[in-house]
Amino acid sequence: MPTPLPSSRQRVRFAQEGRPMSAEKLNWGVLGCGNFTRRRILPAVAASGNARVVALQRRRLEDAQATAREAGVPRAYATREELLADQDVQAVFVGSHHAGHLADVLAAAAAGKPVLCEKPLGMNADECRRMVAACEAAGVKLFVGHCGRYKHAIETARQQLAEGTLGELRGMRVCYGNKAKTGVWRRDCRVSGGGPLLDLGPHVIDAVRYISGQDVATVMATVDPQRDFRTGQCEDRARAILRLTGGAPVSVECSAIEPLRNGFEVHGSKAHLVGHYVLSNMESPVVRMERLTGDPDPIVSTPLPIEPREIYRLQIEDVSRALLDPRHSPRCATGADGVATLRIIDAIYASSELSKAVALG
Amino acid sequence: MPTPLPSSRQRVRFAQEGRPMSAEKLNWGVLGCGNFTRRRILPAVAASGNARVVALQRRRLEDAQATAREAGVPRAYATREELLADQDVQAVFVGSHHAGHLADVLAAAAAGKPVLCEKPLGMNADECRRMVAACEAAGVKLFVGHCGRYKHAIETARQQLAEGTLGELRGMRVCYGNKAKTGVWRRDCRVSGGGPLLDLGPHVIDAVRYISGQDVATVMATVDPQRDFRTGQCEDRARAILRLTGGAPVSVECSAIEPLRNGFEVHGSKAHLVGHYVLSNMESPVVRMERLTGDPDPIVSTPLPIEPREIYRLQIEDVSRALLDPRHSPRCATGADGVATLRIIDAIYASSELSKAVALG
Repeated sequence: MPTPLPSSRQRVRFAQEGRPMSAEKLNWGVLGCGNFTRRRILPAVAASGNARVVALQRRRLEDAQATAREAGVPRAYATREELLADQDVQAVFVGSHHAGHLADVLAAAAAGKPVLCEKPLGMNADECRRMVAACEAAGVKLFVGHCGRYKHAIETARQQLAEGTLGELRGMRVCYGNKAKTGVWRRDCRVSGGGPLLDLGPHVIDAVRYISGQDVATVMATVDPQRDFRTGQCEDRARAILRLTGGAPVSVECSAIEPLRNGFEVHGSKAHLVGHYVLSNMESPVVRMERLTGDPDPIVSTPLPIEPREIYRLQIEDVSRALLDPRHSPRCATGADGVATLRIIDAIYASSELSKAVALG
Repeated sequence: MPTPLPSSRQRVRFAQEGRPMSAEKLNWGVLGCGNFTRRRILPAVAASGNARVVALQRRRLEDAQATAREAGVPRAYATREELLADQDVQAVFVGSHHAGHLADVLAAAAAGKPVLCEKPLGMNADECRRMVAACEAAGVKLFVGHCGRYKHAIETARQQLAEGTLGELRGMRVCYGNKAKTGVWRRDCRVSGGGPLLDLGPHVIDAVRYISGQDVATVMATVDPQRDFRTGQCEDRARAILRLTGGAPVSVECSAIEPLRNGFEVHGSKAHLVGHYVLSNMESPVVRMERLTGDPDPIVSTPLPIEPREIYRLQIEDVSRALLDPRHSPRCATGADGVATLRIIDAIYASSELSKAVALG
């Protein structure tokens, strides 16, 4: 018998940013167990206070069984259908390769199970819209793993801007360069959807939207080499200028061949924030607030305290809590955020191909 | 009688990066003595080992005389014609407002006097081409005050890239934000040519060209608000993506409303350089070299020693030396660099107005 989802009358108490105070746990099934899922997601769920993985799926049954054994997951399946038919599975984490997200999310929705899907939600905005429509029709919630929202540095930037400490938003920059990932499917855009723009871009764009609280109105971009669905060729790098709905311009860079940096700058009329290593998980993030105090230009630069956070645990707890307690307003990105993100990514590719600005209506 | 310029047989000895070892000095006349010229150029010439100002010009004779008295300059004029007719003036520094550069340079060329013109060389590339043609026809040299070339940080980046320490160039970013300058003429594009893109842009673009050793092939940009020659409206900020002739993309930002930063990033296949406060003169520049040394991504970040330099003195000494000794190959930007810079700036404005990429043929 499945553990029923609690009604809105049932109460689960959570500590702010911390572990839930209830022992109630949401039962997750995991579709697709690549490196990322095994190294990041399964341990995060195991460490969480309100979630557990009761079943996982990998294409080869022996792989699934081995992963389940290592991770202490009760049941292993080779097919999506078996996992979704498991009555104990209350919610589904989609960790398949990018080209698999659409079918996984549609199937989960058809099975009436809410979803947390890894980023990018889909290969393009059309896929994302189909997922959102299917989940709405099925009455299940859809979340997207834009995990940067749980980083203290990004939360700090959003807060400082929202509280007026920085003044009016004048411009931003968000960049993310990384080594090219090694998975073979990642180098074939027919499976990955693209290169660093699909892989790192969702983190960059969600940081822009989440920190600014604004959406993107127009895009100018260059992507090279051009993505080619006939050969599978992915881009190595992308540069874009996004114009926010409020008018401020944002410089964006995603690269798989300039591996050494990731960060944001948030420029306000009163002060600005500069964050280094605030998007990746490998380095220690640093955020400084800088402001002019007079003439001739003495700059006061203050480091802000940024704590490391277990972002994947916080994310699974946030989503689990939202599914256990409908009154909880989750921080997690939703299907709508996934659509917005892929619309911007689609526009970046289009702007580069057309060599002109692309407006997002 | 004018002091004759030395023939190529005459020899003036200079110390590398230091003061000339000869007491011979080139006699400069200065056209236009605004704040910048008075605060930066006149003291730099006075401190130089091979240059002196023998005459200066300001529109009001009393102002010219007062400035000359303060700066210890022998003669003061109210008109360009008088200064250029001064037989002692061997070379002309043009420090007038941007709209005055064309007439000043053409007049100096007609008088047979070589020129060091403040940046931007002209209001647009067409003006610059006319200046270059006039100086070539008159057989006089034309230099442009892209003074960043004398900064140790920029020289270091150029060297590290040229010597292969960084590997193959993968991408760059150069940004320069400053407080809006206070001169009334600077806020009227009919006199200034534009806002921060004309004022700060030449430093940014010369840094890109000088460090990379490459020119720009295509430009995508947004400039806001749009420059308007009917009202004099200048832009507040510009964002551009330049594609270098070698293929690497460069993110460029110039802003008069995001005052707190200037810097470069030079990303190579082996390492990258990050420089903060490397374009302005107000703060202490910092340059770090960062490289990946293995997995999982331990970044080694090494500060490079960057010394403060008297860039305006080095510039006037470099140009004076080139004029005194034809065998000296100056670092200073030339008229051709001025044309190239304004072509890129013109393309940035055009790209923003047309909302499309602009190719530089």
